[in-house]
Amino acid sequence: MLSFIKRVLIGQPLKSTALGEQKLNKTKALAILSSDALSSVAYGPEQILLVLVTIGAAAFWYSVPIGVGILILLLALVLSYRQVIYAYPHGGGAYVVSKENLGVNAGLLAGGALLVDYILTVAVSISAGTDAITSAFPSLHPYNVLIACGLVVLITILNLRGLTESASILAYPVYLFVLAMFILIVVGLYQIAVGHVPPHLHEPLGTPVSGLTLFLLLKAFASGSSALTGVEAISNAIPNFKDPAPKNAAKTLAAMGLLLALLFSGIVWLAYYYGISPKAEETVVSQIASATFGRNLLYYVIQGITAMILVLAANTGYSAFPQLAVNLAKDKYIARMFTVRGDRLGYSNGILFLAVASILLIIVFKGRTEHLIPLYAVGVFIPFTLAQTGMLVKWFRERPPGWGIKLTINAVGALISFTVMMIFFITKFPQVWPALIFLPGIVFFFHKINKHYMDVGDQLRITTCEPSVPVEGNVMVIPVAGITHVVENTLNYAKSLHPEQIIAVYVAFEKEAEKQFEERWNQWHPEIRLVTLFSQYRSIIQPLTKFVDTVEHKAMESNYKVTVLIPQFIPKKRWHNALHNQSSFLIRAFLLYRRDLIVTTVPYHLKK
Amino acid sequence: MLSFIKRVLIGQPLKSTALGEQKLNKTKALAILSSDALSSVAYGPEQILLVLVTIGAAAFWYSVPIGVGILILLLALVLSYRQVIYAYPHGGGAYVVSKENLGVNAGLLAGGALLVDYILTVAVSISAGTDAITSAFPSLHPYNVLIACGLVVLITILNLRGLTESASILAYPVYLFVLAMFILIVVGLYQIAVGHVPPHLHEPLGTPVSGLTLFLLLKAFASGSSALTGVEAISNAIPNFKDPAPKNAAKTLAAMGLLLALLFSGIVWLAYYYGISPKAEETVVSQIASATFGRNLLYYVIQGITAMILVLAANTGYSAFPQLAVNLAKDKYIARMFTVRGDRLGYSNGILFLAVASILLIIVFKGRTEHLIPLYAVGVFIPFTLAQTGMLVKWFRERPPGWGIKLTINAVGALISFTVMMIFFITKFPQVWPALIFLPGIVFFFHKINKHYMDVGDQLRITTCEPSVPVEGNVMVIPVAGITHVVENTLNYAKSLHPEQIIAVYVAFEKEAEKQFEERWNQWHPEIRLVTLFSQYRSIIQPLTKFVDTVEHKAMESNYKVTVLIPQFIPKKRWHNALHNQSSFLIRAFLLYRRDLIVTTVPYHLKK
Repeated sequence: MLSFIKRVLIGQPLKSTALGEQKLNKTKALAILSSDALSSVAYGPEQILLVLVTIGAAAFWYSVPIGVGILILLLALVLSYRQVIYAYPHGGGAYVVSKENLGVNAGLLAGGALLVDYILTVAVSISAGTDAITSAFPSLHPYNVLIACGLVVLITILNLRGLTESASILAYPVYLFVLAMFILIVVGLYQIAVGHVPPHLHEPLGTPVSGLTLFLLLKAFASGSSALTGVEAISNAIPNFKDPAPKNAAKTLAAMGLLLALLFSGIVWLAYYYGISPKAEETVVSQIASATFGRNLLYYVIQGITAMILVLAANTGYSAFPQLAVNLAKDKYIARMFTVRGDRLGYSNGILFLAVASILLIIVFKGRTEHLIPLYAVGVFIPFTLAQTGMLVKWFRERPPGWGIKLTINAVGALISFTVMMIFFITKFPQVWPALIFLPGIVFFFHKINKHYMDVGDQLRITTCEPSVPVEGNVMVIPVAGITHVVENTLNYAKSLHPEQIIAVYVAFEKEAEKQFEERWNQWHPEIRLVTLFSQYRSIIQPLTKFVDTVEHKAMESNYKVTVLIPQFIPKKRWHNALHNQSSFLIRAFLLYRRDLIVTTVPYHLKK
Repeated sequence: MLSFIKRVLIGQPLKSTALGEQKLNKTKALAILSSDALSSVAYGPEQILLVLVTIGAAAFWYSVPIGVGILILLLALVLSYRQVIYAYPHGGGAYVVSKENLGVNAGLLAGGALLVDYILTVAVSISAGTDAITSAFPSLHPYNVLIACGLVVLITILNLRGLTESASILAYPVYLFVLAMFILIVVGLYQIAVGHVPPHLHEPLGTPVSGLTLFLLLKAFASGSSALTGVEAISNAIPNFKDPAPKNAAKTLAAMGLLLALLFSGIVWLAYYYGISPKAEETVVSQIASATFGRNLLYYVIQGITAMILVLAANTGYSAFPQLAVNLAKDKYIARMFTVRGDRLGYSNGILFLAVASILLIIVFKGRTEHLIPLYAVGVFIPFTLAQTGMLVKWFRERPPGWGIKLTINAVGALISFTVMMIFFITKFPQVWPALIFLPGIVFFFHKINKHYMDVGDQLRITTCEPSVPVEGNVMVIPVAGITHVVENTLNYAKSLHPEQIIAVYVAFEKEAEKQFEERWNQWHPEIRLVTLFSQYRSIIQPLTKFVDTVEHKAMESNYKVTVLIPQFIPKKRWHNALHNQSSFLIRAFLLYRRDLIVTTVPYHLKK
């Protein structure tokens, strides 16, 4: 039943050899890996204006130079990550770059920050998309959390079905969004060119503004640069590309950079020229669309597509998180299960973990994840800074041909990223401080996990340890609850193994029952030693454990192994289990974790 | 940690021999077994007036003859259950009486109705009590469900601590309630006697009323008789009494009947004489108290105590449900676990089941369980009718000395109970019809469970079956995941048992790994046969199951038993388990339930 539902939802399992078919071509990769970055043009420019509006509308023209600054940062990031892609063609991005060039802790910091960030990406963008939907249909508003969780489940199922399949479905809305934005920008620019937009709507560039401080400008710059989150996703996901993977990834990155630059500068310019002021009840993009087209069908289409892309931005997290988790798991910093490919060849444990974590975030914050955005932005610029510093160190150490230019690019990128990160910490400390606690915590936890895996490896490896003690003989203990076929079955099995000793144990709750059972047993199987234990507190496990303890103590002296054989009858139907005390299950769980003894379950299958 | 919390909440475990000390004396028994019945005087009289008010205030005097009718019914029930107590001193009440005299199905119907009823008692009375509390403190109103669930948990913990302990704590409020009601009635009657209450407030008895039908009178009678729910509780719980149990129980029943009769007639009379009309926003008892004392401290104390007794009415369910469940479980109609005594000698499984079920009801109905009341009343009068009809049949069959009077008492009781039940079905069908579906469903389910237990008994009993097939030899299959100490440990153990054959099985996901492993194995343990399986779909369980299947098939031909030995390393700390794929656990669960093979877990305990 369960497996049928699974098949319907995620499809038939794929053979391992089908892995190549699950790789992405450039068009699909661009769609699913850049939805996060591209969608941020829907809110990035607005972030700039929101800071400038605190001074007054006269300061709005500063959005243009700030926009130019962000384009430079974007260029630096794209060029830098392009170098990362070629230098580390197996993916891993900031994590691998930082680890190899700046040391393990820097790598873990970058990796941990990105892992958390992808969870935040999913929670924040799904919540934003849900808000857009329920703003259009206010009657749905009370179901915000439910809708958001439903969307997470939907995207999770798509991703569990496999990379190519989700890419095929998700590519349309992403390209539709790009197309819609281009139409908006082209029509807007055309109207400006033919003079349909009155020039008095905006202050000319260079108008002096009183009260503007460098601090505010930097804050506006930092806020706007939140549009660049998601740029690093491609460098984490290189193994998902078709061969030649690094080349395809680099081209995809360049295409994404170009698209992002065009859309971003278009929106910033239109907002400036139309003299648009940020409003609480209407987004900047909506204002631009409304001024350009009026409130006609095209306007509503653009609004709808924008809402959709916000939801799909979550998908970037679904592509990058599992891949990053694999890299961390291969280095044994997180649980090994993240390296296992699921039925459809995706890293399904990573996908499921991401889904559960983001649903929890959505539920805990009741769908109001907006104030997680600064945390999220800081979480992106920490790995940006680390990755580019790492590349800088790499070029300085290796000095390949043309290392000067490469080093300059990464140095500029590192400097700007670091500046943005510091601005975030200085200007938004009240929202950002948790990062200072949980990031070191995560790194600490990574080390704990790593130590455990190393310890286990040491203890299991054959070459490093002394030869194991041979087993000289066996003692078998059989807890019995009555004189039944289940017990008979177990006794037969035990005898067939010819152990040195077989002991049956009976736990009695009443003195009378104890005597009675002894008599019946001696008639039934006098050749097998019976030990009866009296339990004052009606517990089976306590006296049994104590007894087995004694037996084991004695057995160890002569290198004997103690095996507890548990007679268990298996009912025909699952629900019947509820009708029987699960003593055998409890006994097994208890003994196995507490003592160094072997536990055997001897089943007796009921036929009706 | 968990066990520490358990100790704090419910106390140290008690020895089985302490059972006698956990029995109830009459005073305590009256308190905890009659809280349900006594608390119903807080709403019973109001139910009568609510029906009469549909005709007009002139009809209110009919509450007096209806009250007399209910007193007669009460007398019949008390006398009848008194006879039940002596005839069935081991408890079980309606279930046992009906089963023995009217057949199994009548017994199961009575038992099932009462089981459901006790769950409803808890849900309804806790919800009513919570309403009373949040009416006093309206700011708590949004937390109604939470408070109700908290109260259930509290009463559950008290009951898990043991009968005497909960009785000691709960006796005070019950007796306080009785005292408060007596003060109210005595002061009220005194004021009437000295002429402080103007006689024009009520119509004199016998005033002709137009529009009154027999149907309405019967409906008023039925509604008022909901005050009698809980009368049967004592007959179910006789084993909880100190010796001589039946005598003590009978005396307690008589005392409860007397108290209930006095309180009920007092409230009915005062309500009539004061001319009180039922209001939506104020209870009848509150109106009487307010008219008698004015709104002074005494008034608020009475209100507070009334709220408390509504909560405590739930406790009757906690005493009667587990005891009834034991009776049903001993006859194998419900799961055996209900017969197990917990650490404090109470039937803790019954107590916990009751708590979980009533919390679910409260959550599903969001604390508004009022409209479950008719269902609940019908659920009481079905066993009333069955029990008294059963007694009637018993007297007729056995004809002991004085059987004529006994038979008459039960016949009257049966007739009235049956009438009340039919009135409920006729006048409140829209609320009561679910009983017609779920009661037969429960009886059906009881039979299903009984059949299963009978089947199991047949299959396990040694005497009835053919001798079991002897085991001629053993084949041991060891799934191996690598060349480690864990595997070595398991191999040593397997060898020490000298089975006819040992086969190691390795599941490979890649062709290369398969070959490599074979080579390494043949260097390590060439004497042990290795079978490698290639898994295209990256599943371990499927190819393994298939292989084991083949092995088993062959083994069966020569009466060999197949044992799967699972090498498992046990990490030192519990959280480490999350870092390892739980393959061994899955393999075990899968094999044990599907195949007739023996599964042994060979643990290897890690030291760090």
